Amino acid sequence: MENKFDVIVLGAGPAGYECALYLGERGKRVCLVDKSEENIGGTCLNEGCIPVKSLVESAHLIQRMKEYKNVFNINFDVEYSNAVKLLEEQKSQLRQGIISRLKRCNVNLIFGKGMLIDKNTVRVCDVDYSADNIVLSTGSYPKSLPNLVIDEKRIISSSGLLRLKEIPKDILVVGGGYVGCEFASLLNYFGSKVTIVEFLPKIMGFEDDEVSRTMLRDFKKRNIAVNTNSEIVDIQNIDEKMLVKFKNRENNSVKEVFVDIILVSVGRGANTKDLNLESINVKTENEFIVTEKNFSINNTSVYAVGDIIKTPMLANVATREGIFVAKEIIKEPRSINYNLLPRVVFTDPGVGCIGFTEEDLKSKGISYKTYKAFFKGNGKALIMGQNSGFFKALASDDGTILGAMFIGPMAYELIHIMAIAMKSSINITELNDIIYGHPTLSEIIFNAVL
Amino acid sequence: MENKFDVIVLGAGPAGYECALYLGERGKRVCLVDKSEENIGGTCLNEGCIPVKSLVESAHLIQRMKEYKNVFNINFDVEYSNAVKLLEEQKSQLRQGIISRLKRCNVNLIFGKGMLIDKNTVRVCDVDYSADNIVLSTGSYPKSLPNLVIDEKRIISSSGLLRLKEIPKDILVVGGGYVGCEFASLLNYFGSKVTIVEFLPKIMGFEDDEVSRTMLRDFKKRNIAVNTNSEIVDIQNIDEKMLVKFKNRENNSVKEVFVDIILVSVGRGANTKDLNLESINVKTENEFIVTEKNFSINNTSVYAVGDIIKTPMLANVATREGIFVAKEIIKEPRSINYNLLPRVVFTDPGVGCIGFTEEDLKSKGISYKTYKAFFKGNGKALIMGQNSGFFKALASDDGTILGAMFIGPMAYELIHIMAIAMKSSINITELNDIIYGHPTLSEIIFNAVL
Repeated sequence: MENKFDVIVLGAGPAGYECALYLGERGKRVCLVDKSEENIGGTCLNEGCIPVKSLVESAHLIQRMKEYKNVFNINFDVEYSNAVKLLEEQKSQLRQGIISRLKRCNVNLIFGKGMLIDKNTVRVCDVDYSADNIVLSTGSYPKSLPNLVIDEKRIISSSGLLRLKEIPKDILVVGGGYVGCEFASLLNYFGSKVTIVEFLPKIMGFEDDEVSRTMLRDFKKRNIAVNTNSEIVDIQNIDEKMLVKFKNRENNSVKEVFVDIILVSVGRGANTKDLNLESINVKTENEFIVTEKNFSINNTSVYAVGDIIKTPMLANVATREGIFVAKEIIKEPRSINYNLLPRVVFTDPGVGCIGFTEEDLKSKGISYKTYKAFFKGNGKALIMGQNSGFFKALASDDGTILGAMFIGPMAYELIHIMAIAMKSSINITELNDIIYGHPTLSEIIFNAVL
Repeated sequence: MENKFDVIVLGAGPAGYECALYLGERGKRVCLVDKSEENIGGTCLNEGCIPVKSLVESAHLIQRMKEYKNVFNINFDVEYSNAVKLLEEQKSQLRQGIISRLKRCNVNLIFGKGMLIDKNTVRVCDVDYSADNIVLSTGSYPKSLPNLVIDEKRIISSSGLLRLKEIPKDILVVGGGYVGCEFASLLNYFGSKVTIVEFLPKIMGFEDDEVSRTMLRDFKKRNIAVNTNSEIVDIQNIDEKMLVKFKNRENNSVKEVFVDIILVSVGRGANTKDLNLESINVKTENEFIVTEKNFSINNTSVYAVGDIIKTPMLANVATREGIFVAKEIIKEPRSINYNLLPRVVFTDPGVGCIGFTEEDLKSKGISYKTYKAFFKGNGKALIMGQNSGFFKALASDDGTILGAMFIGPMAYELIHIMAIAMKSSINITELNDIIYGHPTLSEIIFNAVL
């Protein structure tokens, strides 16, 4: 292999491989560097979105079989290890798909830890490679808390959880944001006794209060213990278990719970430490690389995209940034709009939100009207046995859509209808200029706007 | 009960009850007439969309359990009668929902067969009721063929099929349109040996050739025998079975099959015969009532909506027409746009289409570009184990979206994203101005347009 390329991409996650594919497909000589073949696809494919959704899919089937137990006289074993085997197969299939595409686009793969030498040179395992452009996309890692250091044995990250071969009997989930809630929801279906401890006054991060409350109500119905405004104050090892004490920050009351595993889902840090960023004077903030608007570092030929910069840490954002930079390098027109980014959560009920919440609008003093309908009035949701939740849209007095949210079945797909509506700036009443198919979940929009 | 109302609505299907609800909610004295309480909800709720989708839901679970058999060591019995019991419960729950809403809106219910006496009078069981406006929404019935008369015993309609208590071992589906394909798909999952005989050269009605071919390929994989360009030439009763002969219209070859049941799904006629339409000089065409653009009959105070007029025979269309006429009567602004009507089919793979097909555009001589991606490249579809099918959009050279179609998982929901896009007249490239959630089925749009 030659050591000279048009572009070297460091990190084979969604930002990196999409960037490499786009350039390779257009004839650029591209080299993509990551630690090993198992890292291709990044956190998303290997330790995040994909394996979690595979478990969610299995969990939903388990739940559905319970609901239909008497209809079809169903018997089954909740074999977690088999669900894990299935997700490994799916990961491998998707990884092979990416590798084939990389080969078809003539992208060179180099395995090993890469570091910057200068703005045109990357070193991998003592070999130097040069390129006109370098793209950094080395992703992120799950963060510990000061008093809660991840050891991936009993105090684990989402990555560690996805490597478990059996389901923990009792688990404490620290952090009731999107990731914590997804794991809580699926582990509960697999039979874990789940306790959530969240520092903030509500779960589901900064989503609309009504979304958060609906999730809370449904979690409680499913016997998921949710403790908001709380923080861990003590952990003791007692035999095979941990005795965890957590304090309510409002009334200082302390509760305790015995668990086998503590899952820490309190956010992620950027993988920037070992890149030798000093070599090109990269500015970082809290580990995250600071870039120009076009993702270049100090307007040089080096770019950074994906989880290592301070944009939303999502695979779909990383993909767009990777393609943006590819287009930037070969001078094609490009744009990216973070306002039209749906927030999707694969809990049960599912969540899909875009734009402002009611609380956002109140805090900004923007007046708005709400349009709302419940899935319990939706025929398809009733038939699916998933009629918890609602659709809500928020619009200004002149009908401009300011925000929209679904909580309920297929919320993560339905939100794209509203994303396109907001992108198009149609008036909220125009949502009913289309005749929704029947019986569909999408009809809930019709009922809300009617 | 008084015999004088503001509005009398004849027929309590989606057109009728939605019209009655809209008017009742706004203080009008409304009377809704249908044969019995069991008819409330019309064909859609009682003999169409809802029960079919309930069976589809059960069928998909059966299929899913087969796929996951070894993952969770699943055992089950395909108890069709229990699936029917479940759908009856769901129907009853939805019917009670409508009845409660009608009561809340003070709509008077009268049970019995209604007929017109004059433009302000309806007679039900020898009692005359008068009103300023009358709305006819008596719906439709399944049609027989000249040589294939429905007896609802062995030669049955969709209504008859939904009353079966056990699954037919061998069934012939006459008509491979939307309804025929939905039944073929679900009966196959319940274990029936299904044969389709379709007169036209392709199944799935007038959908895009590629959609039709994909469905055909998937049906064949599932051992559903599909015979296009074919018609039945002979039926003989032999013991408990029927020996059915059907001829290929191209090569005149004759095939035969033994079946227990013949399902006739060749379209529907309008329930207009017993309405005494002559009393107000209603013009009909092939049983269907001819109306003005505002759905009035000869610009009188009598209106007709839903399946009895010549617009698409769909519950969601009926709903809109019912509400349109309610608004017309109380002089509110109203509109209806049949071009923004997604065509949804609850087969497996599912179908959702809107606007023109490739064949439409070719026959009109309109030049177009295609944008296409396959579900096999979609992570969520892979995880769902439903990665057959594709998304295709057709756009003019300047990027105007002319048509769109999904065949695959959740196609019937996803199509609404494209419906809103077409409604908004956004350029096809603008579909990628939103960042699709990951991993979602909706991302297939991103991949097609990229």
